[in-house]
Amino acid sequence: MAKIIAINAGSSSLKFQLFQMPEERVITKGLIERIGLSDSIFTITVDNEKHEEILDIPNHEVAVKLLLDRLTKLHIIHSLDEIEGVGHRVVHGGETYNDSVLITDEVIQQLIELSELAPLHNPANITGIQAFKSVLPNIPSVAVFDTAFHQTMPENSFLYSLPYDYYKKYGIRKYGFHGTSHKYVSLRAAEMLGRPVEQLRLISCHLGNGASIAAIEGGKSIDTSMGFTPLAGVAMGTRSGNIDPALIPFIMDKTGKTADEVLEVLNKKSGMLGVSGLSSDLRDIEQEAAKGNKRAELALEVFANRIHKYIGSYSARMSGVDAIIFTAGIGENSELIRARVLHGLEFMGVYWDPSLNKIRGKEAFINYPHSPVKVMVIPTNEEVMIARDVVRLSK
Amino acid sequence: MAKIIAINAGSSSLKFQLFQMPEERVITKGLIERIGLSDSIFTITVDNEKHEEILDIPNHEVAVKLLLDRLTKLHIIHSLDEIEGVGHRVVHGGETYNDSVLITDEVIQQLIELSELAPLHNPANITGIQAFKSVLPNIPSVAVFDTAFHQTMPENSFLYSLPYDYYKKYGIRKYGFHGTSHKYVSLRAAEMLGRPVEQLRLISCHLGNGASIAAIEGGKSIDTSMGFTPLAGVAMGTRSGNIDPALIPFIMDKTGKTADEVLEVLNKKSGMLGVSGLSSDLRDIEQEAAKGNKRAELALEVFANRIHKYIGSYSARMSGVDAIIFTAGIGENSELIRARVLHGLEFMGVYWDPSLNKIRGKEAFINYPHSPVKVMVIPTNEEVMIARDVVRLSK
Repeated sequence: MAKIIAINAGSSSLKFQLFQMPEERVITKGLIERIGLSDSIFTITVDNEKHEEILDIPNHEVAVKLLLDRLTKLHIIHSLDEIEGVGHRVVHGGETYNDSVLITDEVIQQLIELSELAPLHNPANITGIQAFKSVLPNIPSVAVFDTAFHQTMPENSFLYSLPYDYYKKYGIRKYGFHGTSHKYVSLRAAEMLGRPVEQLRLISCHLGNGASIAAIEGGKSIDTSMGFTPLAGVAMGTRSGNIDPALIPFIMDKTGKTADEVLEVLNKKSGMLGVSGLSSDLRDIEQEAAKGNKRAELALEVFANRIHKYIGSYSARMSGVDAIIFTAGIGENSELIRARVLHGLEFMGVYWDPSLNKIRGKEAFINYPHSPVKVMVIPTNEEVMIARDVVRLSK
Repeated sequence: MAKIIAINAGSSSLKFQLFQMPEERVITKGLIERIGLSDSIFTITVDNEKHEEILDIPNHEVAVKLLLDRLTKLHIIHSLDEIEGVGHRVVHGGETYNDSVLITDEVIQQLIELSELAPLHNPANITGIQAFKSVLPNIPSVAVFDTAFHQTMPENSFLYSLPYDYYKKYGIRKYGFHGTSHKYVSLRAAEMLGRPVEQLRLISCHLGNGASIAAIEGGKSIDTSMGFTPLAGVAMGTRSGNIDPALIPFIMDKTGKTADEVLEVLNKKSGMLGVSGLSSDLRDIEQEAAKGNKRAELALEVFANRIHKYIGSYSARMSGVDAIIFTAGIGENSELIRARVLHGLEFMGVYWDPSLNKIRGKEAFINYPHSPVKVMVIPTNEEVMIARDVVRLSK
């Protein structure tokens, strides 16, 4: 009867979910926002009811203390001793980590070194780790990496065709992200299909505000659309995905921006926001497109078209595919995007049923029964993967 | 009985081919190198015999005069009056030209304006045009663009997911290149298949030192792997193809290079040269890989893998494919690359015959007779396309 807490720390936020393991039951979950700013917001859900408090939380350590205090005050747990482990989402594990790891001082040191590869994310993740370590020094703590699942990619997938010493000297290669999500849905797909994951060729489409596609063969990621950073691959909410690299110097010349400023545009002003000029939120864009807005329609086409092509690409990569999986906000909820992504794939054995596609946010098969390639919607659950790894590694 | 000359002018070179039209017979062809440098080289083939002269050619106008002089001196033609038209390869036609065009002063002005999009190529092409105009002012002259064939791409293919005003203000979009070659092989494929090109879905793989893939539906290019510049798409001899755009600022930071210097690395030190560390020439790399050199083997894998994935991608784009075409130096001659690119595509109906694949540089089907998707090797011929367009447009 172990209670495990799963943490996703951002630079000014902390998401948490408390699990009863091994049942994988969610006891409570919530979010602390605006840490280090005034009027921080603490939200927690107890018995399906949301509690919110506005107060000043100067740093992550105070946030963790507050969280633990409320867990007992709200009678969610009797004593902090019930918490037997904590798992932290960490964005970048580089080539050092191909699996989750029990956190030691040495591990923290390595995470700090890896911050160079994920300067926006790893430092925030580390802050969360250190806050828990200082408040609950005696429970095991585990790091779960977004990149780890993709460490099985072969060199011909992860290597860029750049001077080889860029890889050796600077670690320039494809790392891939959303690994915990791709792993969760691939395992769940195998269960739903009633077949060992080792025998399956899966294409997982994690489509949220960030989006990535993974080719998963025999339970192992062998290719993925994100790259050295989460900017690469398909078009996203605000990210460009792949573009002609020669455009960066050209845009610098034209606009007078520095390379870093252009990168900022590619990360924050591009994707569906850039094409539509309206919003990075697919729901807004679907609505506007339905009203006849042409740029919104174009944003939908560009978004779906790139994903559609990745499905062809990764089917070729695996010499065929057994199931295509949709997950994350858009993948789970957008009937329209799924329909456009799947349109015209009959030539490779994908026969999907528009009436089954009319679902949101729950597990389902949306292919016709006779379809050689299955098509599945599977809500992702990165938190339960974190909790599982805490149990596995803290034994 | 028209004689038409097809010209491909580089900054210090001029390639020529003289055709007897409409028979499309090559009367002579050759190359002038090191124009503007000392010891320029003039090479011309007459009756399958190569003549070479070393002399000083200060500029393109002198080169053209020399060429015309030798055509009569070597008794290839009796009089310059026999030449009824000249066609020039021009790399970039922007959005202005979706077909070849009879050159006027206004056209030249527009080509100069388009030089911004192809600063390395268009100025050299224009030099060739002006040299001919000054030496043979009275014959029609036609510009044939590398980009024109791809102007049929729909907006959802050619638009990058960048801020939309980058397209409107700066012309930032996918243009695509090798269009004359992709068009030639697609027309020839239709003839060889005995079917109207309007009914075909073709994937054309132009694999030379530069390489691009095109999805050609009903005779029209609807997508292609090169982009705003010829750097994008698959890995090439020395070009990186697509990489995570975030790598440019990262490489700048790490190496102290400017954006333009990084671009130079991506254009000239990457691709198969960068991965292998040996050579940009596929023949060298195949040889070294056969001897067990691992980096050479890796370069082959990276090169073939990207093309293989584009075939899946473009099949999805067209909801299937009727024929896959290999052309240009590598596509026509490398049994090994074709074999690796085609490996494992049976799931989409590609059944190819290894014994038929053992050919070089000539037209052939290399699929099994029962294969739903045909696989063809077709030597490209951009020059004859230029000659045809001169005849068509100078009538």
